[in-house]
Amino acid sequence: MKYTKMHGLGNNYIYVNEFEVKLQEAELALIAVKVSDVNFGIGSDGMILIGPSRVADFRMRIFNSDGSEAKNCGNGLRCVAKYVYDRSMTHERHFTIETLGGIVHVEVHVDEEAVQTVSIDMGKPRLMKKEIPMLGDEDSITINESVQIDGADYQMTVVSMGNPHSVMFVEDIEQAAVNQIGPTVEHAALFPERINVEFVQVQNSHEIDFRVWERGSGITMACGTGACAAVVAGVLGGHLERAKPITVHLLGGDLVITYADNDHVYMKGPATFISDGVFYLR
Amino acid sequence: MKYTKMHGLGNNYIYVNEFEVKLQEAELALIAVKVSDVNFGIGSDGMILIGPSRVADFRMRIFNSDGSEAKNCGNGLRCVAKYVYDRSMTHERHFTIETLGGIVHVEVHVDEEAVQTVSIDMGKPRLMKKEIPMLGDEDSITINESVQIDGADYQMTVVSMGNPHSVMFVEDIEQAAVNQIGPTVEHAALFPERINVEFVQVQNSHEIDFRVWERGSGITMACGTGACAAVVAGVLGGHLERAKPITVHLLGGDLVITYADNDHVYMKGPATFISDGVFYLR
Repeated sequence: MKYTKMHGLGNNYIYVNEFEVKLQEAELALIAVKVSDVNFGIGSDGMILIGPSRVADFRMRIFNSDGSEAKNCGNGLRCVAKYVYDRSMTHERHFTIETLGGIVHVEVHVDEEAVQTVSIDMGKPRLMKKEIPMLGDEDSITINESVQIDGADYQMTVVSMGNPHSVMFVEDIEQAAVNQIGPTVEHAALFPERINVEFVQVQNSHEIDFRVWERGSGITMACGTGACAAVVAGVLGGHLERAKPITVHLLGGDLVITYADNDHVYMKGPATFISDGVFYLR
Repeated sequence: MKYTKMHGLGNNYIYVNEFEVKLQEAELALIAVKVSDVNFGIGSDGMILIGPSRVADFRMRIFNSDGSEAKNCGNGLRCVAKYVYDRSMTHERHFTIETLGGIVHVEVHVDEEAVQTVSIDMGKPRLMKKEIPMLGDEDSITINESVQIDGADYQMTVVSMGNPHSVMFVEDIEQAAVNQIGPTVEHAALFPERINVEFVQVQNSHEIDFRVWERGSGITMACGTGACAAVVAGVLGGHLERAKPITVHLLGGDLVITYADNDHVYMKGPATFISDGVFYLR
């Protein structure tokens, strides 16, 4: 099976071009598990298929390393955008990608005939408790509010970017107890579908440091929707300016997030080819 | 950089053919670190170079995922043997491979024009305490002896196969406290260079179940020298027969080990191609 390995800020997938490689629907989950296994396969966070769409320019399907199908992945979208442009599958710089989570608008930024960064319209943030979901008055929102969990108080802003995020601002990101607070907040009864937990230190009006505890995964190097949620929370809390590009320093690298006047959040960041090859399915 | 990923019982490396790919000595450690990183590189236990030798038919050099150079690796040797035969770099079925740990004799077993398994002469076991190394009377040996560590007694046989192993026979491998006993024995003051710890359940006269706690790595799926040490310990302790092939069931798959009459230990096992590709060094 021909494949390409790519990463976006260290979030890495095996990309398979369905225009060239035909896989059976019934075997996709198993192949994703196999290629993702670093010992017996290649090693990755999962497998992403790039194929034709009836409703957009391209379609991407994301399979996690356990074989389950995911709705969306910001880091993966940037890689798909770079893949289709750099490999001449489109000559447009604006195009659309269909995902299980909906149709996404992307823009590639090209230099020296290769995509350097990709901007993605990540949609509108949702703030109401019923949209998170979070227990309590379902139409109310949580911005810089003190929330009690297991007897301790956490000052947080709660934002959904399709998936739920609890954002906390800290004085010193290096001192943030990500490993302790992360799982405590993730599993609080307040969040019936659990929640991602972000720690943010504001450097200045256009720069923040960021750490994330991902729901189900723990500390990861990059979480695109988390970075968006952090900037939304920063704007709503008065730490950051609206409609201004904010550089987010993640463990895996930088993203530039803009919370625009039209209420959409735009994410701009890199995508990188790691290798091309053939995987021996057996 | 052209590469091949292969595994032997899940022990996986990026193989680079030095006959085709020229790398600078000064950059080898860095490349090994890069390709081994599953997030930003391919993902592996390290990198193995296959090149010409002045003293053997081929030379292999092993770089761990931290960039350090290793002396030898049984699982890697099998992969190198399959690589050079299947890719027509030799038509001999017996040949020699130079490693930092010495020259190794290998034999490939071919079916349907591809190597199915590889036998390796793993040399002679060393038993004296000074050869392990282990504290105490330096010329004495430890076979099924009760050894006290941190106030508890462990019945063990201590064998060096180039690296040190402490082998313990258990009634039920599933009940073996590998995670507790492993690190306790590994770090016992008795073993100044620490030690690998093996747990063995004898199924019958030609079959054993095997678990390993590897020095510096913890539980791993396969340890070739550990499997050899286990069979040597089984023969010396009267559980297994000398000069008879013993199937060792490891977590990563099976090895067949023979402790021969000439005092050499022979290991036979599979090697598998995972993928071929190009890695983008940058």
